[in-house]
Amino acid sequence: MDCELKQTLECIKSVDPEWIARAERRQLELTKPPRSLGVLEEIANRLCAIQETLAPIVEQREIYVFAASHGVCEENVSPYPSAVTAQMVLNFLDGGAAINALAKVAGAKLTVIDVGVDGEFAGGAENFVQAKITNGSKNFTRGAAMSENEMTQALRIGFDLAKKARLKGTTIIGLGEMGIGNTTAASAIAAALLKLEPEATTGRGTGADDEILQRKIETVRRAITINQPDADDAFDVLRKVGGLEIAALVGLIIGAAANRTAIITDGFIATAATALAVKAHPAIADYIFAAHLSVEQGHASLLEYIKQKPIFDLQMRLGEGTGAALAMNVIVAACAAFLEMATFDSAAVSNRI
Amino acid sequence: MDCELKQTLECIKSVDPEWIARAERRQLELTKPPRSLGVLEEIANRLCAIQETLAPIVEQREIYVFAASHGVCEENVSPYPSAVTAQMVLNFLDGGAAINALAKVAGAKLTVIDVGVDGEFAGGAENFVQAKITNGSKNFTRGAAMSENEMTQALRIGFDLAKKARLKGTTIIGLGEMGIGNTTAASAIAAALLKLEPEATTGRGTGADDEILQRKIETVRRAITINQPDADDAFDVLRKVGGLEIAALVGLIIGAAANRTAIITDGFIATAATALAVKAHPAIADYIFAAHLSVEQGHASLLEYIKQKPIFDLQMRLGEGTGAALAMNVIVAACAAFLEMATFDSAAVSNRI
Repeated sequence: MDCELKQTLECIKSVDPEWIARAERRQLELTKPPRSLGVLEEIANRLCAIQETLAPIVEQREIYVFAASHGVCEENVSPYPSAVTAQMVLNFLDGGAAINALAKVAGAKLTVIDVGVDGEFAGGAENFVQAKITNGSKNFTRGAAMSENEMTQALRIGFDLAKKARLKGTTIIGLGEMGIGNTTAASAIAAALLKLEPEATTGRGTGADDEILQRKIETVRRAITINQPDADDAFDVLRKVGGLEIAALVGLIIGAAANRTAIITDGFIATAATALAVKAHPAIADYIFAAHLSVEQGHASLLEYIKQKPIFDLQMRLGEGTGAALAMNVIVAACAAFLEMATFDSAAVSNRI
Repeated sequence: MDCELKQTLECIKSVDPEWIARAERRQLELTKPPRSLGVLEEIANRLCAIQETLAPIVEQREIYVFAASHGVCEENVSPYPSAVTAQMVLNFLDGGAAINALAKVAGAKLTVIDVGVDGEFAGGAENFVQAKITNGSKNFTRGAAMSENEMTQALRIGFDLAKKARLKGTTIIGLGEMGIGNTTAASAIAAALLKLEPEATTGRGTGADDEILQRKIETVRRAITINQPDADDAFDVLRKVGGLEIAALVGLIIGAAANRTAIITDGFIATAATALAVKAHPAIADYIFAAHLSVEQGHASLLEYIKQKPIFDLQMRLGEGTGAALAMNVIVAACAAFLEMATFDSAAVSNRI
């Protein structure tokens, strides 16, 4: 890992509980029964603490979808061919994927970043970043998914995007990813990091049948046996059984937390990346809002690990940032209520008897 | 109940399952693993069935907040004085309440309707309808909350608004209400309709302490004993232990369903109104999307009764339509994904192997 990233990581601080307390006091002045907006109040209060203000802003919103191919697809762990990764990148750029529709509803700018897709794209699209490191991670049943250098580059891409986003005034970032095979990587990360059996962290992904699921579980088991990832070292786990888009997400999360930018997780893969970032520095958890609980096996354990309750449970399992986009609306609403509501005094509404 | 309303009610039809099936088939063509958008797909499919189209529209969105005072406040069932109802109407008109902020985020027009507030408002505001029937419902521990004529007028106000909304192109309506004391009315409705003990349907509302809660439970018990509402007759329950804003909501729901307009419930009170409408005609349930599960005791039983799963569980308990506004975003997102996504064919994305 490079020096700036390492130093930045070490400097990340937990949010100041005094800011939470200040926001809570302000909530009590607003024209509603105490705590009657429930989780919306908790969201707004933490946003205040992240931004260190009682006037939090979520005007400039971004969703980053990192895409990469996965060598582990050789093990036939997905019902979709690996080529779909590149095809879906084109679909993102043409505006035809679920995340395009949902990002628009969330009022978020969508950016797609090729960090390792096996395929070529005619650049030039405004919402596309060409940052290909290699044509995909290696098959991690035969050794590490990435070299140290590849991982560092991927981390750096995410980290630099977070910095750039902050300079543009972005205060909230949604995590997205695309990579056929990446639920297998996320399952291996979860198994390694949480020290769980592969059965407990491996699910059906895009729709594996029983046969593929069994093969995924065995693939994860072999990945762990062969690579022996060190559960105490997030970057060792990431390099050995992760993927390029997952590494970029980890870099983005670290960069966002360092810049006091709120982060919204997405499904299983984005949450695996988040768990790695939180492992690298536990204070990062304070900057995370968990979007949803997906149906993917192992997602609940990862959410528990990052100590965040999901906003939704809508049986989604698509990834791409779709959960993050949906949750962004809720965070915007929480912030709007906090900022725009009158107080009992200002509106001359009688408070409790 | 008046003749047109009665006839309209009888003509409401369940949505055609063939439209659900058509929408499901279309979902399978879109560039995502089958059913991977979970509940979002179910929402979009039902919207198709409600509107009888594969191109559902949710552009024109409205939230109606009906306000009325409650005679039962005499029994000291709320920690807030009854005067807060009128004060909050002014707060709505000044844009200072939670629902103002959340309706804006949902892109919904907010309309406040005085159907029975004890207080005068200087009309003229664009988003205000003056339709006061009386200065509040009567204390239903001493007899019926409303006369037959008062209830009919209130039903009619909601019913006519739904008709007018439809003519303006509104295809989705969120339910809102304001009325200090109305959780007691909703608790009595739930107890009567679901034949439950008052303890099972009576909660803390805006924040009742143990003493007030006990008094609320006893108030509900007396209301049932004295009025003997007929559980088989929604309008008998409504008239005897409801309220003017609840009656207007029931009329709105009936009118919306008759006009094939989608309806989003809110918290406990709006859901009590919905349960009455569903009791009056079970097919109405097909037009309802349940926004959220509030913390109010009895809400879960009402949601079960209307056979709808809530989209959120965010520990909210504010009413005003805040839950409906939040859920509206999700429905808009579900619709956007359905309408805007490319198909496997059109985007040249490979489908499952």
